[in-house]
Amino acid sequence: MTPILTVFKWSPDGGKGLARDMRVRWALEEVGQPYEVRLVSFKQMKQPEHLARQPFGQIPVYEEGALTLFESGAIVLHLAQTRAGLLPGDANARARAVTWMFAAVGTVEPPIVEREQAGFTDPGQPWYSPARLALLDDRIRVRLRALSDRLGDAEWLEGAFSAGDLMMVMVLRRADDWLLDEFPRLRAYVARAEARPAYQRAYAAQHALYSGAPTDSFQ
Amino acid sequence: MTPILTVFKWSPDGGKGLARDMRVRWALEEVGQPYEVRLVSFKQMKQPEHLARQPFGQIPVYEEGALTLFESGAIVLHLAQTRAGLLPGDANARARAVTWMFAAVGTVEPPIVEREQAGFTDPGQPWYSPARLALLDDRIRVRLRALSDRLGDAEWLEGAFSAGDLMMVMVLRRADDWLLDEFPRLRAYVARAEARPAYQRAYAAQHALYSGAPTDSFQ
Repeated sequence: MTPILTVFKWSPDGGKGLARDMRVRWALEEVGQPYEVRLVSFKQMKQPEHLARQPFGQIPVYEEGALTLFESGAIVLHLAQTRAGLLPGDANARARAVTWMFAAVGTVEPPIVEREQAGFTDPGQPWYSPARLALLDDRIRVRLRALSDRLGDAEWLEGAFSAGDLMMVMVLRRADDWLLDEFPRLRAYVARAEARPAYQRAYAAQHALYSGAPTDSFQ
Repeated sequence: MTPILTVFKWSPDGGKGLARDMRVRWALEEVGQPYEVRLVSFKQMKQPEHLARQPFGQIPVYEEGALTLFESGAIVLHLAQTRAGLLPGDANARARAVTWMFAAVGTVEPPIVEREQAGFTDPGQPWYSPARLALLDDRIRVRLRALSDRLGDAEWLEGAFSAGDLMMVMVLRRADDWLLDEFPRLRAYVARAEARPAYQRAYAAQHALYSGAPTDSFQ
């Protein structure tokens, strides 16, 4: 049975691959698992049919027979644990790769999303001030500096490329527009990942879907 | 070899069990794994010896022989996958429990931490306004309402108590002071978890450590 991935019908980034389905598409390509896509509009995401699959009304959702999963990290981990290619064989090395998955979504991503969200919701509010935005950027820099120091001159975070790198790279790309150039090692790390054939196939698939003109996007 | 858990020498919450080592202590108690504790001061957390174990300069760190892990979610998952008691036997049910772990740290926790952080760092700043705090609270409510709706009248999120409930309950406790009472099902869910003997042993251990007078806490 071919798995089904639920994704945005229209993505706010216009195909830059920042929506969270890109993480799962990339993982599916890395492990060589074909999949089908179900599109949901912003309106459908808040309706009962979708909420039964994803209680927070978000994407992605992954369905594989009787199994329905949400949270990009959980889906990528499921793929990594049931297919070869995204986790090392050694048990300790696997546990360390999983640590980087949690670090990506729990430690590095939140300050980036907070800064993004300020750009979406706060302009026009009295608290949308340069001083506050600078403080939010500094919170991101603290995380990026620590990550850059740990990565050092290594190619990937723990030996070979793993699901930990996949999740971390996808999170770092969200800061690509304005902060990543301050950290050359991280910039090169992201570029190495983007050069992977599986990444490129996943990117092309979502780009083909989102780069056209938006239609009934907000319905 | 007895695992070593690195925790705060002094905790800002004075023993209320909100620091992230509590998640690991609880998991260790649920699976019946004895452990030792290493204390780090706020100053030591930013020094090379600790950064070698935890690149972001945080707690907890878990060491088990040659394996060093950080990120509470990754440590709890490691314990759940290598000991009985925190994940169901069925493969699909296990994957669903892991989904709730990622939902806890990636979807429910970030808006709670953002609101907490505003209370620590923003008073006195021009953007510390009632209107903005109300907006931050509303972002938390959106997540809590979705979670409450999904939980419904069930005892736990996916059948039996799992590592997913453990992580979610620990995240919800951070909103306990000001928002959880608006969601009676979540309030009862947290209370059910807190009644577990393993939780109580873990709580007592950290409380004994932190409820005394702070000593050289910020050194």
